[in-house]
Amino acid sequence: MQGRAETTRRCLVEAAARLFEERGYAGTSISDISALSGRTSGAIYFHFGNKEQLALAVVEAHFATWPEMISGIHRSYESALERLVALSFSVARAFRDDVVVRAGSRLWTERRAIDTPLPAPFLGWIDTVGSLLREAAEQGELAGGLAPETAAVGVVYAFFGMHTVSDALDGRDQIEDRLYDLWLLLLAGLQAKPDARELLTRVGAPGPSCLVP
Amino acid sequence: MQGRAETTRRCLVEAAARLFEERGYAGTSISDISALSGRTSGAIYFHFGNKEQLALAVVEAHFATWPEMISGIHRSYESALERLVALSFSVARAFRDDVVVRAGSRLWTERRAIDTPLPAPFLGWIDTVGSLLREAAEQGELAGGLAPETAAVGVVYAFFGMHTVSDALDGRDQIEDRLYDLWLLLLAGLQAKPDARELLTRVGAPGPSCLVP
Repeated sequence: MQGRAETTRRCLVEAAARLFEERGYAGTSISDISALSGRTSGAIYFHFGNKEQLALAVVEAHFATWPEMISGIHRSYESALERLVALSFSVARAFRDDVVVRAGSRLWTERRAIDTPLPAPFLGWIDTVGSLLREAAEQGELAGGLAPETAAVGVVYAFFGMHTVSDALDGRDQIEDRLYDLWLLLLAGLQAKPDARELLTRVGAPGPSCLVP
Repeated sequence: MQGRAETTRRCLVEAAARLFEERGYAGTSISDISALSGRTSGAIYFHFGNKEQLALAVVEAHFATWPEMISGIHRSYESALERLVALSFSVARAFRDDVVVRAGSRLWTERRAIDTPLPAPFLGWIDTVGSLLREAAEQGELAGGLAPETAAVGVVYAFFGMHTVSDALDGRDQIEDRLYDLWLLLLAGLQAKPDARELLTRVGAPGPSCLVP
């Protein structure tokens, strides 16, 4: 029974994510989610109580994507800067391809219309990037004069801005090209010995970009 | 009569901006705008036709803020990089203090709920920053190996991301501190001879930050 309840919960989160991503929070009703998931409205209320809590469950599923991705990347690269850049491309692809991540992102932008507090997406990333940059400093790869904590905040701002623009201008189709170009700028300041294009090649980043901005 | 119509239009845009900024597009009605502006609903429909067109007028008034600000800065600094940094602080303060700018920004994030296309805010900034960075390159201030157009896109991403995080975490209260920290990272990559803190002092930027991120 436990397993079946979990399957139902997962199916409901997935159906809700698909609809929130396409139509937004206000444009999605419990009966739409019922129709897409093949579950009754009663089952939805039983598992989540209301639409707010279902939106929160989608945002939490979005957040749950990251720890496994982060530890996978930690096993793949010795250099902390390479790990950071590789991680950023994995995150960018998830924002482009993963409906739960896309839905969580759209719900966050609509948070003022949702009557329950949603967790802020930035603080965890600032910690993660800060740890990687401190390690890069210990490995002698970080430019002198930059505090890892300050640089981490700037990297997170730049990534989120890149994502916002990419979403607005082309529905994230060119997000990898945009991220490649962004790293050319950021690595010029971050690296003790700048070799941005080589580092991007080492982590298998697609590019160089032929994007007309 | 022309002057009076213009005054009415301006008052309506200002009242609408105040309400859109506070309550969002969906949370603001024509009768709220009528009450705050002291104008009849009939006057609102006469001047704007519907709520969508009034939202568009607020976004257009937001856009109209920038040309004068940009030309004011152009007269104040010889160095194109100094102009860029000074301009960014003026823009950040407008996002913090100017209700029309704040309203335009909120309407943009709610654009999918507004049944009329709103102009995209990024492309004009990419052009403006690109021109300044090309001039910085001619002045010998831009680091070699960075194409001004690519760097401009990254700077605009980073600024918009900083604004998004600042809005989400503290309603933009600390936007100047955040921007100061962002420039420490970006100038490390942009400047031919990095002296970020000195440049920030030369343009009168507040800081250094004592922000806990």
